[in-house]
Amino acid sequence: MKLSLNQATVKRASVPEVVDVCVRNGIEGVGLWRDPVADHGLERTAALVRSAGLEVSSLCRGGFFTGADQRLDDNRRAIDETAALGASCLVLVPGGVPDRDLVAARGRVASALEALAPYAEGAGVQLAIEPMHPMFCADRGVVSTLGQALDLAAPYPIDVVGVVVDALHVWWDPALAVEVRRAGPRIHSYQVCDWITPLPADVLLGRGLPGDGHVDLVGLTSLVADAGYTGYVEVEVFNEDVWARPFDDVAADLVRRHATGWEPVVDGGHDRLPVTP
Amino acid sequence: MKLSLNQATVKRASVPEVVDVCVRNGIEGVGLWRDPVADHGLERTAALVRSAGLEVSSLCRGGFFTGADQRLDDNRRAIDETAALGASCLVLVPGGVPDRDLVAARGRVASALEALAPYAEGAGVQLAIEPMHPMFCADRGVVSTLGQALDLAAPYPIDVVGVVVDALHVWWDPALAVEVRRAGPRIHSYQVCDWITPLPADVLLGRGLPGDGHVDLVGLTSLVADAGYTGYVEVEVFNEDVWARPFDDVAADLVRRHATGWEPVVDGGHDRLPVTP
Repeated sequence: MKLSLNQATVKRASVPEVVDVCVRNGIEGVGLWRDPVADHGLERTAALVRSAGLEVSSLCRGGFFTGADQRLDDNRRAIDETAALGASCLVLVPGGVPDRDLVAARGRVASALEALAPYAEGAGVQLAIEPMHPMFCADRGVVSTLGQALDLAAPYPIDVVGVVVDALHVWWDPALAVEVRRAGPRIHSYQVCDWITPLPADVLLGRGLPGDGHVDLVGLTSLVADAGYTGYVEVEVFNEDVWARPFDDVAADLVRRHATGWEPVVDGGHDRLPVTP
Repeated sequence: MKLSLNQATVKRASVPEVVDVCVRNGIEGVGLWRDPVADHGLERTAALVRSAGLEVSSLCRGGFFTGADQRLDDNRRAIDETAALGASCLVLVPGGVPDRDLVAARGRVASALEALAPYAEGAGVQLAIEPMHPMFCADRGVVSTLGQALDLAAPYPIDVVGVVVDALHVWWDPALAVEVRRAGPRIHSYQVCDWITPLPADVLLGRGLPGDGHVDLVGLTSLVADAGYTGYVEVEVFNEDVWARPFDDVAADLVRRHATGWEPVVDGGHDRLPVTP
């Protein structure tokens, strides 16, 4: 798999800076976020990545379907932006459970997909449902397993609705191997980072660089490849320490780790695997 | 279901203080922890709860099977202590994944049960596997779903190896209703608290009193009752704010909430359900 840098990993870089970092470090894919793309301008960003020879492996993010307002208009705009960028997929973050009725919240995700899938198909855009770690079920993502995401995608053509396999969100799942095999061509995006302990105060930022934590990324990457996935492996890390580093330093580090096939980083890595009590 | 107070909810209370609080507030069950029991003395604690007319709904905790040492000797001692207290079950916390090999860690849980089940059966003690929220998979509990816990329990007699249904750990599970029904008489313990957002810095302490968070405890309690469970509903809350309150104040609060069947606490409760973005 070729490497892609999700721009959230170098959060303080502007779109042109991310593009430059990728080009300088031989990274062929980039994952973009809507806000910084809007800051730089949608058409300018599309032209910039094209002229740099980069592929846009994902656009983050649509979704947040579970409130009273399912945000369908905003999601249609996100689909248009995905098409304009030629991005491989639009990542959908499902949204949380506002009122203790988890079953109903999950139902709103299904009905939003029903409303959006034809629009995405018309735009030639792949929607990628992101199952999220159950830690985020309350306030961010009620789709908690890959199996659940695949059930939601099943009614639609494979190239219209698929899933994101993000190591952080799915690594713990006892059904992981089975569900990755089942996913096959529904895998529209493969994202890696690592689960580090102890979790920091803001669990959203509790992600390590791939190789620094508890996840068997070598094994997961094999599973995803064996399922037939031939897209990019995109590194998406939310971590204050990583954000504080020079962008090129982070990129070069990722290129080295990618070259090993995401082997654990032994120096210091094993220190980060405390097991209680 | 009758109410039980897990002593971790009033963490700073000694064993005699917990017993007094239960008796004064008409709470008929108590969940005990091994360390404070040892501080007070095992036999003295057994005599104290007996004379107070309390039932011990659980003893926390055995387990931590996934290291190189499966801690079998310590677990046998925990089984003996459970028998001495006449506790309904011994809660088993599985342990984390020390070396990135999650499948092997889960295998060590299975082999530890194989070693311990005959000993527990001989002592007349029920072992209760606690499936833990996937947030704790890395460093505390590799058994991540109720279904997985039931698969682990399946080879053993129902009254020897069962499961804990703890609302915090299982509420997000898309298979929850199915698995609670399947669990039936394997449910050896039912514990409640609530999922509050945002999570605090130490996620172990991110538990709210039942009714203060995102979990549909009315629905879950119905599921558990419909599965045939007739034991105690035990409140186990790790929360610095709760620990800072007078013990009797916490107990009286729980008695009131229990009387409503764990209805959401509206005053302030809804304030605590922020959904991003």
